[in-house]
Amino acid sequence: MPAAVETAQERAEKLAELARGAYARGWALGTSGNFSAVAAAEPLRLLITPSGVDKGAVRGEDMVEVDADGRMVGGPGAATGRPSAETSLHLAIVRARGAGAVSHTHSVWSTVLSDAAAEKGGLAIEGYEMLKGLDGVVTHEHREWLPIVENTQDWSAGAAGVEAVLRQRPDTHGLLIRRHGLYTWGRDFDEAVRHLEVLEFLLEVVGRSG
Amino acid sequence: MPAAVETAQERAEKLAELARGAYARGWALGTSGNFSAVAAAEPLRLLITPSGVDKGAVRGEDMVEVDADGRMVGGPGAATGRPSAETSLHLAIVRARGAGAVSHTHSVWSTVLSDAAAEKGGLAIEGYEMLKGLDGVVTHEHREWLPIVENTQDWSAGAAGVEAVLRQRPDTHGLLIRRHGLYTWGRDFDEAVRHLEVLEFLLEVVGRSG
Amino acid sequence: MPAAVETAQERAEKLAELARGAYARGWALGTSGNFSAVAAAEPLRLLITPSGVDKGAVRGEDMVEVDADGRMVGGPGAATGRPSAETSLHLAIVRARGAGAVSHTHSVWSTVLSDAAAEKGGLAIEGYEMLKGLDGVVTHEHREWLPIVENTQDWSAGAAGVEAVLRQRPDTHGLLIRRHGLYTWGRDFDEAVRHLEVLEFLLEVVGRSG
Amino acid sequence: MPAAVETAQERAEKLAELARGAYARGWALGTSGNFSAVAAAEPLRLLITPSGVDKGAVRGEDMVEVDADGRMVGGPGAATGRPSAETSLHLAIVRARGAGAVSHTHSVWSTVLSDAAAEKGGLAIEGYEMLKGLDGVVTHEHREWLPIVENTQDWSAGAAGVEAVLRQRPDTHGLLIRRHGLYTWGRDFDEAVRHLEVLEFLLEVVGRSG
Repeated sequence: MPAAVETAQERAEKLAELARGAYARGWALGTSGNFSAVAAAEPLRLLITPSGVDKGAVRGEDMVEVDADGRMVGGPGAATGRPSAETSLHLAIVRARGAGAVSHTHSVWSTVLSDAAAEKGGLAIEGYEMLKGLDGVVTHEHREWLPIVENTQDWSAGAAGVEAVLRQRPDTHGLLIRRHGLYTWGRDFDEAVRHLEVLEFLLEVVGRSG
Repeated sequence: MPAAVETAQERAEKLAELARGAYARGWALGTSGNFSAVAAAEPLRLLITPSGVDKGAVRGEDMVEVDADGRMVGGPGAATGRPSAETSLHLAIVRARGAGAVSHTHSVWSTVLSDAAAEKGGLAIEGYEMLKGLDGVVTHEHREWLPIVENTQDWSAGAAGVEAVLRQRPDTHGLLIRRHGLYTWGRDFDEAVRHLEVLEFLLEVVGRSG
Repeated sequence: MPAAVETAQERAEKLAELARGAYARGWALGTSGNFSAVAAAEPLRLLITPSGVDKGAVRGEDMVEVDADGRMVGGPGAATGRPSAETSLHLAIVRARGAGAVSHTHSVWSTVLSDAAAEKGGLAIEGYEMLKGLDGVVTHEHREWLPIVENTQDWSAGAAGVEAVLRQRPDTHGLLIRRHGLYTWGRDFDEAVRHLEVLEFLLEVVGRSG
Repeated sequence: MPAAVETAQERAEKLAELARGAYARGWALGTSGNFSAVAAAEPLRLLITPSGVDKGAVRGEDMVEVDADGRMVGGPGAATGRPSAETSLHLAIVRARGAGAVSHTHSVWSTVLSDAAAEKGGLAIEGYEMLKGLDGVVTHEHREWLPIVENTQDWSAGAAGVEAVLRQRPDTHGLLIRRHGLYTWGRDFDEAVRHLEVLEFLLEVVGRSG
């Protein structure tokens, strides 16, 4: 949990950097994607990108803060922004995984594969050295399971289902929403960025191998 | 319509930025593509990129201004430039859609798919979360129709047909010209950029899923 | 012919910029590619990138100058560099086409398609709006023929064959060498860059449509 | 061997530049990849990127130095870093090839092809002009053999097998580890970078031609 080692301003800047970096790679075009970081644990406070903003231009001062129920309780951008409609998914991931930072991206390959593999309920990625970039994976002889859940526009209802999926499979490092994109997370920003790069790389490898 | 909130110079600079951004992504190579913004509503004045210039180097001071009939009536670049041969298409879109900014790009995927789907008269893109980046679309359970019209070198004649297509389908956010490229638009620059990014992303997803 | 409007230093800098731009797009990796510009017409002097240098780091002061027979006669880089082994091809293009600038790149798509279409002796690219970026093409209803010649390591002998191909087809704007890459040219730097962007774009479109 | 012409600091900075350049191209995402350079020949000292760091942010001062047995003996980053688990592979390449710089990358195409061609024990790349970017190759009529070895997590044991493969085929310029990535090398940094660009280019050509 990054709260202890950063000021609130540093955290907001790092969150903006995570969002801008994803945009620059084409993973958060057209105001898509959202990104969050835990600001306090007890009671839970989550800093999150505001809804509908261009992730290529988002700044630390645009971020909003929500409580454990997703209600906006502050943040530098509270006067102008409102939290993303997918805030409940970020909170479900924080609860189920103890994540300190959550990243949600819309890349071409995650969108393509979330649809192609949907009938199997998930995508298995197995035997690649790059898997060792995922926390706790110490050998390429690993089978990573990326669950795929159906898309919805009611994540306040749908988040409970995602949380259940994540609790059933505590070994997962990411989650695909069908025809929508990828969720991944980490204990802190560095791990969330690493997991994002690793999973996007592997999705491209799988997509091009098919 | 962006006229009220920008100076003429700011508008010209934003238009140049839109063009250079499209070039940087490979969507307006080799002097291809053209971009416009409404400068005044009554009587209509449209600021547009001049014909035949490198979109990677175009500046606000290169832009030319046309009236509702496409006649050049001024603009900072009037001494050196002339309006694009596709100006009548931009005007048709402004009339049919009330657009404030129009973007025409030549990307690889729009070129490929405008040909592959031409016999069906258009391309349906359905069920993707990214569709929500299009104005008025509130759920992924949406079927976006991208009409495809045949290419011509006489857009002063052809623009009426495009305008008719757009009036028949007031729910569309873009238009493909066969083996040519994409037109999209928005109420203002931000919406035009968002629609461009969303449609190019979806075209790549469809192209790679095929 | 650019000689009249540039100083020798400006020409060398523009040539370096052409080379670095091609490298940045992945079209001249690993010291591949070479680029030239006519420095004087009577007698002919051609400024050309030296052999074996990294095109991402090449500077105007590295360029060498050759005469009509390909002999080095000077240039800012004469003390350290020697002309490319493909200089005779550049000279053949200048003779056959009156080119002012010549660009030779090794892109992925030109390499792939130069092989896939080799048995037909060339690649036809037809019906694309982007073709209008080629000098003299005024409609998309155009069939561009890209001749493909077999590769060789003896271009002092092979250049005559290339020159013959170009004289037989004075309507071409480029040439593929099998499993090797693309040659294109222009009256001046701007046209050479435009032709390069247009042909590389079209090769990618054809490659992805296949 | 680059030791004679650089200071220790210059060498460390060049090594960091090699790593950051590979990251920027998507060939060393998620802390993957490692890079080394010979610092002294007798006794052997190898400067190498530390384990588990982000290659996009690595600096000269992070590098660590090992002896011929892979034991850390110093380097600017010795206080914070430890050598990569694949150090023994770098040492095997230095021994078998007399390399001055070694590059190990995880690109999409090397990962895809290292798996697709694994049953043949290697990948043959033949007939491409770009092959001439490899040291000692003077014609495109060359058949480059990229051996593919199975992945392991015990490279202290596995390095001997790799060294044997390299000694059997002294004409190779690179090596693929199955579902893992590419090793290549050069007498100095410039040659290692050139070989990396040439082999990655050719892997993409082969991958897209398939």
